Amino acid sequence: MNTNDRKGDQMQQSKPFRRLLLTGAAGNLGRQLRAALPAWADTVRVSDIAPLGEVAEHEEAAVVDLADRDAVLALLEGVDAVVHLGGISVEAPFDDLLESNIRGLYNLYSAAQKQGVRRVVYASSNHAVGFHPVTSVLDTDAPLRPDCLYGVTKCFGEALSRYYFDRFGLETVCLRIGSSFEQPKNPRMLVTYLSYRDLIELVRCSLFTNRVGHAIVYGVSDNRIKWVDNTKAAFLGFRPQDSSMEFEHLFAVNAPTSDLNDPTQRFQGGPFVLAGPMEPKR
Amino acid sequence: MNTNDRKGDQMQQSKPFRRLLLTGAAGNLGRQLRAALPAWADTVRVSDIAPLGEVAEHEEAAVVDLADRDAVLALLEGVDAVVHLGGISVEAPFDDLLESNIRGLYNLYSAAQKQGVRRVVYASSNHAVGFHPVTSVLDTDAPLRPDCLYGVTKCFGEALSRYYFDRFGLETVCLRIGSSFEQPKNPRMLVTYLSYRDLIELVRCSLFTNRVGHAIVYGVSDNRIKWVDNTKAAFLGFRPQDSSMEFEHLFAVNAPTSDLNDPTQRFQGGPFVLAGPMEPKR
Amino acid sequence: MNTNDRKGDQMQQSKPFRRLLLTGAAGNLGRQLRAALPAWADTVRVSDIAPLGEVAEHEEAAVVDLADRDAVLALLEGVDAVVHLGGISVEAPFDDLLESNIRGLYNLYSAAQKQGVRRVVYASSNHAVGFHPVTSVLDTDAPLRPDCLYGVTKCFGEALSRYYFDRFGLETVCLRIGSSFEQPKNPRMLVTYLSYRDLIELVRCSLFTNRVGHAIVYGVSDNRIKWVDNTKAAFLGFRPQDSSMEFEHLFAVNAPTSDLNDPTQRFQGGPFVLAGPMEPKR
Amino acid sequence: MNTNDRKGDQMQQSKPFRRLLLTGAAGNLGRQLRAALPAWADTVRVSDIAPLGEVAEHEEAAVVDLADRDAVLALLEGVDAVVHLGGISVEAPFDDLLESNIRGLYNLYSAAQKQGVRRVVYASSNHAVGFHPVTSVLDTDAPLRPDCLYGVTKCFGEALSRYYFDRFGLETVCLRIGSSFEQPKNPRMLVTYLSYRDLIELVRCSLFTNRVGHAIVYGVSDNRIKWVDNTKAAFLGFRPQDSSMEFEHLFAVNAPTSDLNDPTQRFQGGPFVLAGPMEPKR
Amino acid sequence: MNTNDRKGDQMQQSKPFRRLLLTGAAGNLGRQLRAALPAWADTVRVSDIAPLGEVAEHEEAAVVDLADRDAVLALLEGVDAVVHLGGISVEAPFDDLLESNIRGLYNLYSAAQKQGVRRVVYASSNHAVGFHPVTSVLDTDAPLRPDCLYGVTKCFGEALSRYYFDRFGLETVCLRIGSSFEQPKNPRMLVTYLSYRDLIELVRCSLFTNRVGHAIVYGVSDNRIKWVDNTKAAFLGFRPQDSSMEFEHLFAVNAPTSDLNDPTQRFQGGPFVLAGPMEPKR
Amino acid sequence: MNTNDRKGDQMQQSKPFRRLLLTGAAGNLGRQLRAALPAWADTVRVSDIAPLGEVAEHEEAAVVDLADRDAVLALLEGVDAVVHLGGISVEAPFDDLLESNIRGLYNLYSAAQKQGVRRVVYASSNHAVGFHPVTSVLDTDAPLRPDCLYGVTKCFGEALSRYYFDRFGLETVCLRIGSSFEQPKNPRMLVTYLSYRDLIELVRCSLFTNRVGHAIVYGVSDNRIKWVDNTKAAFLGFRPQDSSMEFEHLFAVNAPTSDLNDPTQRFQGGPFVLAGPMEPKR
Repeated sequence: MNTNDRKGDQMQQSKPFRRLLLTGAAGNLGRQLRAALPAWADTVRVSDIAPLGEVAEHEEAAVVDLADRDAVLALLEGVDAVVHLGGISVEAPFDDLLESNIRGLYNLYSAAQKQGVRRVVYASSNHAVGFHPVTSVLDTDAPLRPDCLYGVTKCFGEALSRYYFDRFGLETVCLRIGSSFEQPKNPRMLVTYLSYRDLIELVRCSLFTNRVGHAIVYGVSDNRIKWVDNTKAAFLGFRPQDSSMEFEHLFAVNAPTSDLNDPTQRFQGGPFVLAGPMEPKR
Repeated sequence: MNTNDRKGDQMQQSKPFRRLLLTGAAGNLGRQLRAALPAWADTVRVSDIAPLGEVAEHEEAAVVDLADRDAVLALLEGVDAVVHLGGISVEAPFDDLLESNIRGLYNLYSAAQKQGVRRVVYASSNHAVGFHPVTSVLDTDAPLRPDCLYGVTKCFGEALSRYYFDRFGLETVCLRIGSSFEQPKNPRMLVTYLSYRDLIELVRCSLFTNRVGHAIVYGVSDNRIKWVDNTKAAFLGFRPQDSSMEFEHLFAVNAPTSDLNDPTQRFQGGPFVLAGPMEPKR
Repeated sequence: MNTNDRKGDQMQQSKPFRRLLLTGAAGNLGRQLRAALPAWADTVRVSDIAPLGEVAEHEEAAVVDLADRDAVLALLEGVDAVVHLGGISVEAPFDDLLESNIRGLYNLYSAAQKQGVRRVVYASSNHAVGFHPVTSVLDTDAPLRPDCLYGVTKCFGEALSRYYFDRFGLETVCLRIGSSFEQPKNPRMLVTYLSYRDLIELVRCSLFTNRVGHAIVYGVSDNRIKWVDNTKAAFLGFRPQDSSMEFEHLFAVNAPTSDLNDPTQRFQGGPFVLAGPMEPKR
Repeated sequence: MNTNDRKGDQMQQSKPFRRLLLTGAAGNLGRQLRAALPAWADTVRVSDIAPLGEVAEHEEAAVVDLADRDAVLALLEGVDAVVHLGGISVEAPFDDLLESNIRGLYNLYSAAQKQGVRRVVYASSNHAVGFHPVTSVLDTDAPLRPDCLYGVTKCFGEALSRYYFDRFGLETVCLRIGSSFEQPKNPRMLVTYLSYRDLIELVRCSLFTNRVGHAIVYGVSDNRIKWVDNTKAAFLGFRPQDSSMEFEHLFAVNAPTSDLNDPTQRFQGGPFVLAGPMEPKR
Repeated sequence: MNTNDRKGDQMQQSKPFRRLLLTGAAGNLGRQLRAALPAWADTVRVSDIAPLGEVAEHEEAAVVDLADRDAVLALLEGVDAVVHLGGISVEAPFDDLLESNIRGLYNLYSAAQKQGVRRVVYASSNHAVGFHPVTSVLDTDAPLRPDCLYGVTKCFGEALSRYYFDRFGLETVCLRIGSSFEQPKNPRMLVTYLSYRDLIELVRCSLFTNRVGHAIVYGVSDNRIKWVDNTKAAFLGFRPQDSSMEFEHLFAVNAPTSDLNDPTQRFQGGPFVLAGPMEPKR
Repeated sequence: MNTNDRKGDQMQQSKPFRRLLLTGAAGNLGRQLRAALPAWADTVRVSDIAPLGEVAEHEEAAVVDLADRDAVLALLEGVDAVVHLGGISVEAPFDDLLESNIRGLYNLYSAAQKQGVRRVVYASSNHAVGFHPVTSVLDTDAPLRPDCLYGVTKCFGEALSRYYFDRFGLETVCLRIGSSFEQPKNPRMLVTYLSYRDLIELVRCSLFTNRVGHAIVYGVSDNRIKWVDNTKAAFLGFRPQDSSMEFEHLFAVNAPTSDLNDPTQRFQGGPFVLAGPMEPKR
């Protein structure tokens, strides 16, 4: 990795962070945050397993496979805090999830601790609790109910990051992100929608709150129907500004379906609850 | 009952419900909802024990005593969902409550199950919990504390509807309606006020939320003082738009009364806590 | 009713109660308690809708239909406390339950309040909460989940007695009795078993605890498997002395059944969850 | 004390209170409330251990040491309700706190009970719970965790006022006031800020809510970051109108400090957690 | 204070504590513990405001007024741990309670911290929560409800000791002792009874459990009726061996009293709830 | 794998299970259970990565690496229920834990689901919650606080098994086993001790309880000090018969250590809290 951030330090000393690392920078949410992070850090190191496109002056880019322990150790060098979107964010065969979301996450935390990183903002997922019914409202202490193997790996990540906090004081905010897209794509996403603007604000709160310990927070906008409740995470100061209410007109209003037993309707995880487990590739 | 809704079906297929039943349609709240329901259903079947006035084109009207089992069975035929305001909604001699609110309610649920109805929106009451003190804030799991025999029958209704959900999957939203009038009539109603607009929105949420299971929700507007908390019912998406704050000027501001032991001041039920039991009529 | 208890009062002043009323005295549990109550009261008034057999010297017997308001008012005259086992204790057509368990219970409480009775020990039932799964342990605040119409009437009784306590200070202990027989009759009853001796002790505690307010307590012996937890009712001092462990050898030990969806296995109510609703008799 | 309020009574009968007592009237918050209280009472009796400046026509002024039992008894004569800001509101040697916040508070309650006062609005403090971490959100039932001896005296005050309510029905609202100044003075105060306007509204709610029992409520404006949650005190109707968000620009945005063990950063009490105990003066 | 414990140290090195301080050693419970402590410490320093009788070889005796700060500082010198029974243990005029239970307790903790004492076993009282009704079962997190001014001072003590733990790591076990006598003196004490043997075992657990933090535990034997629940304090390992059941025969079994409103019957504190406040002595 | 269990079926039809699989059978606890399981199953299939010694007539033995997916699939063929002790049960380098406790566990559940296995008894560990302080008592809903990477893999296992239950109805009992040895080896194990006899009884309850859903239960004997509370798992019927009290004499009674900050003393996990993370082997 070729890093020449020393000059940047001298020139932009007013930004709160010297260097932030953004993993998964080539993904959908990664691109949103790649555009936002420069406001808060002199240098933004961006990484992904996929190509990262053009690299801006304030950026350092590194194509890294999270399963590569040495590469990850180098990636974390000189980093103040991490916004970790890397890894697989949909249901996938277990072997793939194992490499990126379990081995890769361990590599990240192991390296972060060794390199003296102070905080990780970790993209967990509402799929860590997606097997709760749609008729309940979860607070941030709700029992884990993963709805797919991907969700199971997010439970692993929440446990691993808890350990690194209790053991080393390395702080993490686990963002249980709902559906963060330009706009909701189906009626369920009216409930789980997180606007890009609110996502960025949530990351901002997670980075700048003075002390976060090991925190869990749901990433949803101020939508009309709520399945989750962030009261216990109010110390993060996250106040969504957007709402899916502006998109409700996109979907026809229907009488409730008659099939009460359809698990994709009964549980918060929606179609994810039937998505796994995928057959391992051989 | 003479029903010729087939043609209506052909002409208004875009409305989400084919046929909604509104009981208690001649009452105060019934009239409000009778005006609102046509927006959501091709046909609105209205019923009451009292005369129902002029019947609109989209309506089917039936004068029915809920204690009449056969009549109620017929009333529920072909119905998708019920908004059940029927029965007695004030303190009354037990024999009267027994017929309308207990036998009548059983008849309604028994018929609804037999006729394949999918959901009931049930007018329960804050008088199911009115013996809680005014210095507590109740969530939807608060223990039952009926403040009169009428309130006891609402507890019965919540238990009966729970049974029909657990046994048959027949969904119910129990609306613990406060004081729904044009405007608050006394200082206590500043706390329990539910505007007509918010009432209609609450029924709308109760009908259209995809899955409600067996839900309990308080029917109050966004008043300044709160005795109840709908956090656990946030999956219904009910957001009141009105508030009794606009009516606070109607009542003189007084220092608190000196009589701390007056039960009508100590308990949320107000004057209801002394209203019963009424002597049975002979 | 012909009562000449005055002389008895003079002769047996050392017993704590002057007159106890036992309803349902001709039933299975009624017979057990009929034998026990004389230790605690000068006079035991026994009643049932069925014949009561031979009447002992210390007894007053009255064949009464609880649905007969005047008869019940007379029955409660001069009574200190009631052990109320009367009414139907199995699933039955709603009309029957309505007369005995709803109208009858109202008559009992209305009369008790008018006659100045101080306390009722009310035979509620675990079927008021029988739709909770067998994998949960219920405390005395668990939400009501009746598993049959009979259970719904017990929910009514708990609400009605709560009202009479809040309104008039008439105290009630609601005994959620499990399976009280000579011995368990099937594997489920190993969990719900209440020995006769423990039943009597539970009634004793309910009668003699100085103040009970409106209490709910589960009536089970100290069985190995527990679905209920009486910690919050520990102020009653009930400590079961028996256990179904001595009967475990009666039932073959089997691997768990393969049918996870059988509701009679999933829910605490067992076969009751499918017993209702019975078709009303015409 | 020279009181000639009789004429005032005749002339201003429309105000809800006849006479309010404001203690600590010469302090920072006292001056704010001294300006507000005349709107609600014919006569405002103001007291402090310090000089009270010019006395308005509707005022009665009394320089009183709260440790002087007889003087306090006289001070409470003819008072309807008290807004008690008197005593020491910062960390101080224990002997000083003992006189003003413990002996003085006992004198106040003892006198209030003897003089028939109906309600006290008591300035408690967030320092009664300041040793809770900044990563938790406290409701009004949170365990006491005083962060200094001053905070310990506030715990005493909450216990003493609870006793006077349970024993005599003398109502108290304990205001756990955060940082009430013109504007926040440091980043921590962005969380604990209570605007003067919101303070006055909080006192108004505490005085005029019909029944408050013994209530605890946090005194904070609608700031972005929340360490406290007033849901259970919603019966008071306090809705802050201000927020420290308008002052966030005053403080540089910094990356979180690296010293996770600094107790002034870890705990809600901030610098108070190290302020005590001060050496007693000799 | 003349202490020559050096020789004792050389001779009795096998006892776990070098020096324990027992305050209130001349009182009823003090005498019990004075006999028990020698088993655990080379030297037992005993103190009281009253004469301490004959001093044993392993003892150091000091007549000390807890309100005397210098004397208390000297008293704590060289002490490993304190069993603090000193102060007033019944309702008394506030001025007296203030000196012994508030000023005296502050002196004790201030001295303990300065002298490096590691742990205090503090005799709190069930009167810190005596205004809870007899129909509830309190865990160790139950809200404070003192039933007299004496109880208020125990709330002060629990708050002060919490502060010293949070601030300095000085550990305390607060023993909410019930009625510790040879045997129960009235029916209420059947519930609150703590045998001397169980008291000593409770102190033993409080002294020897490796880490206690700031703990609250109820001091009651294994009585039949329970108003309190030590589940959350199970880390102390206290298992009572005695029960008031052996004394139940001493009190006549009576039907419950008819006066439901008698506060000495309604609340756990019994007669204490009417005992205060005593008029201050002049 | 060569299995000829047909004959066994004919001869021993009275045993409840046809075939139980015991993994980790060569380990310390495995040997205990290997001796116990034959009482409950016609055939016990034993497996380990280590040699399994002599194979009894009722046994089928298979040396299997859990990371070998095909081998595990074969291992589960024809199995009714699994007692899963396999994998690493101490802190180890992450790569090793990954293979046995993560990949291996996925292989086990994936195979169990495909082969129609009905239940898994899974050896989780108290190290899944070992970073809770020794001054708290955990119920089975306590938040996960793993104290080492091994503990993190147990959190993974609890999440994975939850998913297989919610998704497929495959039941699991997660045994959070404490210290199961002949006798406690140090003072901490007096708290965490689980006798072999109680371990076997716990497995018996886990296998034979009719329905367990996804259950969590602590595996400790009836020791004097308790850090955990199985009340919510009482439906399993586990009642320990042994206690570490008989071993308390083995360890000298000491005054508490002075080092309050030693994490191995502060947290339930004891020395495990410093054991990880171990450096990955290269």
